[in-house]
Amino acid sequence: MKKIIIVFAVCASITALSQSKDEANIKTIFDNALKSGQSYEMLEYLSTKIGQRLSGSAGAAAGVEWSRQAMIAYGFDSVWLQPVMVPHWVRGKAEVARIISNREGTIDVNICALGGSVGTGSGGISAQIVEVKNFDELKQLGAKGVQGKIVYFSRPMDPTLIDTFSGYSGAVNQRSSGASEAAKYGAVAAIVRSMGSNIEEYPHTGGMRYADDVAKIPAVAISTAHGDRLSALLTRDKDLRMYIETHSQILDDVLSYNVIGELRGSEKPDEIIVVGGHLDSWDLAQGAHDDGAGCVQSIEVLRIFRAMGYKPKRTIRAVMYMNEENGLRGGTKYAELAKQNKEHHVAAIESDRGGFTPRGFTMSAPENVKSKIRSWKPMLEPYGLTNFNQEGGGADIGPLGPQGTALIGFLPDSQRYFNYHHTREDTFDKVDKRELELGAASMAALVYLIDQNGL
Amino acid sequence: MKKIIIVFAVCASITALSQSKDEANIKTIFDNALKSGQSYEMLEYLSTKIGQRLSGSAGAAAGVEWSRQAMIAYGFDSVWLQPVMVPHWVRGKAEVARIISNREGTIDVNICALGGSVGTGSGGISAQIVEVKNFDELKQLGAKGVQGKIVYFSRPMDPTLIDTFSGYSGAVNQRSSGASEAAKYGAVAAIVRSMGSNIEEYPHTGGMRYADDVAKIPAVAISTAHGDRLSALLTRDKDLRMYIETHSQILDDVLSYNVIGELRGSEKPDEIIVVGGHLDSWDLAQGAHDDGAGCVQSIEVLRIFRAMGYKPKRTIRAVMYMNEENGLRGGTKYAELAKQNKEHHVAAIESDRGGFTPRGFTMSAPENVKSKIRSWKPMLEPYGLTNFNQEGGGADIGPLGPQGTALIGFLPDSQRYFNYHHTREDTFDKVDKRELELGAASMAALVYLIDQNGL
Repeated sequence: MKKIIIVFAVCASITALSQSKDEANIKTIFDNALKSGQSYEMLEYLSTKIGQRLSGSAGAAAGVEWSRQAMIAYGFDSVWLQPVMVPHWVRGKAEVARIISNREGTIDVNICALGGSVGTGSGGISAQIVEVKNFDELKQLGAKGVQGKIVYFSRPMDPTLIDTFSGYSGAVNQRSSGASEAAKYGAVAAIVRSMGSNIEEYPHTGGMRYADDVAKIPAVAISTAHGDRLSALLTRDKDLRMYIETHSQILDDVLSYNVIGELRGSEKPDEIIVVGGHLDSWDLAQGAHDDGAGCVQSIEVLRIFRAMGYKPKRTIRAVMYMNEENGLRGGTKYAELAKQNKEHHVAAIESDRGGFTPRGFTMSAPENVKSKIRSWKPMLEPYGLTNFNQEGGGADIGPLGPQGTALIGFLPDSQRYFNYHHTREDTFDKVDKRELELGAASMAALVYLIDQNGL
Repeated sequence: MKKIIIVFAVCASITALSQSKDEANIKTIFDNALKSGQSYEMLEYLSTKIGQRLSGSAGAAAGVEWSRQAMIAYGFDSVWLQPVMVPHWVRGKAEVARIISNREGTIDVNICALGGSVGTGSGGISAQIVEVKNFDELKQLGAKGVQGKIVYFSRPMDPTLIDTFSGYSGAVNQRSSGASEAAKYGAVAAIVRSMGSNIEEYPHTGGMRYADDVAKIPAVAISTAHGDRLSALLTRDKDLRMYIETHSQILDDVLSYNVIGELRGSEKPDEIIVVGGHLDSWDLAQGAHDDGAGCVQSIEVLRIFRAMGYKPKRTIRAVMYMNEENGLRGGTKYAELAKQNKEHHVAAIESDRGGFTPRGFTMSAPENVKSKIRSWKPMLEPYGLTNFNQEGGGADIGPLGPQGTALIGFLPDSQRYFNYHHTREDTFDKVDKRELELGAASMAALVYLIDQNGL
């Protein structure tokens, strides 16, 4: 009995010692990020000097080269590019849209073509508008109600959902597949109310896909303010028409790259922990929150480790994925090569919910892995990381899932994300320095704990 | 035994039923705030149409009248003014400040007089600068090092403290009592590095007090960017001088008011639950986050109850306190009258940490009361309210403490607060609609639970 007690006491002491070492190292991580962090300066450059980074654009190429050089300058053990062919969609000339009402005259409204959509060409499209809230209403109207018309999908994000990503999920199918749904019944174009939390003048773009078996019709988003105006006019004037002109085109695929930086593990170099964000953005945005923030936070994780002299046991990689927004080619390629090269990815952490104040981490992993991560909560709570209950990883890291990698999403506060998402308003000045830094430190703290303790 | 089990089962069922009723009502509160909330519109008016509301100013009078009318318009049971004499400090003409360096020439810097400070008058003050980080360093310099000079207090807010209010607390004594400390040793003026989280061009004003027994010397804040410039120059040029000109004056006290709106309790009208914020702001700011947010959130709590048809058991009051910033006369008067009128205040909740995303509530109350409030955590956590561990209430409600009132502070995320606090940047556009609304709903939810269950 005495022996057992002694063994227990020794074990408990070792655990306590290693916990207090972990706590001290986590404090060092946060202190470094908040006192001498580089994430904010990096993001300023990426957002304001480079700006938009749509896949296939010159901006994306500049983003690749900038992040490669940044990681070399920070002295990471290796930095390399991973070639990947990406879609090349271009918006072309600015869009034009007008509501044409017999009663009210002509009213200009703000729209933008959805990513991946075909253009109307300079002839434009002029047709009667029909409004629906969802695909059921569309189906009920059928070809009789839809043929030859422009369908307006007007269901808003549900404001009563506290997590704005839930509101987004509940509305985004209108954007992603509304056009093809409408085309089934002979619509000539689709308009979707922007996926935004507020009533604003500017539209939110975003990805859409055409189904294989129906006509490809132009698809645009209208600003929430103008969308609501359209709905109001439609209640009074069922014969309302709209003129839409978009110039988007789908060009040939272009060679681009994932950008990877690595600190080589000292004890278990074959076990890899990945942190990442996506380098591409929409063309309308600077891509500050989406997802410049995730990129610079990922670089910052490795920079902090070097700055504090931490030698990771396992290999730590920062990955800037290309083409999350309209193809996910980068994330797919990364996982494909990981499999081909027989790499063992223990965990992948993605930051793609903006550079806002940290709330926790989402997880997509076996229950025992989740429990282990949750057991670290007492060490992370002092930094505001309290939510470890949501399911989920991230789009770019998703393809690693089938390889048994624990997928983890950095979870910042979601309230402001859909003010800016995919719009001209996603600019550097919308990012708060401390919030961004706390996010980087939160990710570094979790990487540190996984590196020290395994999963 | 069976009887006991049955009694237990019945009790458990009743608890479960009332919990699920509470959960449903809390959801109704949040739904109302997020779908048809009025806090954002109210704050837009208060911030942009009325603007600054420094005690004794025309803006403060307009704020009083606006909030009185707003609460009447929402149909509260009673709305009244509580007269209170407040200090009347005025800034006067814009301040002037220049660093005068033999090596670098003359450099204009941005300063502002601290609230309550005396002016230099149009003659200004020109003297040598001596920099200290704290009162110990000042003491070590003594009269020999300080006499006839301007003392620059340069200790920044500690950025490694996660709660920015802790960083503020660690630095603010330089602002509140630096002038009198410096005057003890014969200083002719005091400059304090602004209490801000970032490096900015604009200074942060704020309150200061003179000790009774020393000379009243002018006191100003310098912007963090210019303060750091000053520090850098001082390392190269110990004989650096500065010219400061401020025109502030302390005028006679002015009659002003706390503004109170009430929903009368249906069962225990003599038990009062107060929610409040302070109506006054600094003259440089619109007072959007500090503390227009707290005012409109408090009005919103009562508006939501009426909108959802909730008849409180206890009396619920929204109080807009006057003069938190430079005197606390409103909060003091409110408590004084509560005592005089033998009112029983069960709980007082204050929102004075900005209109940011909710994190929890601070408490200053007996342990059993804290435990009771913490027992409601499972019903509040789904709304992001997870932190119930911090001690504290709020400045305005503090004077109710000796009457046995449970003091509760609404605790939003603190990261952005000291970007704006007491500056020209504390404007309506810095407030996020959903964050503000969630704060109002959080306060309403807690008031509801206290009203239903007592404390």
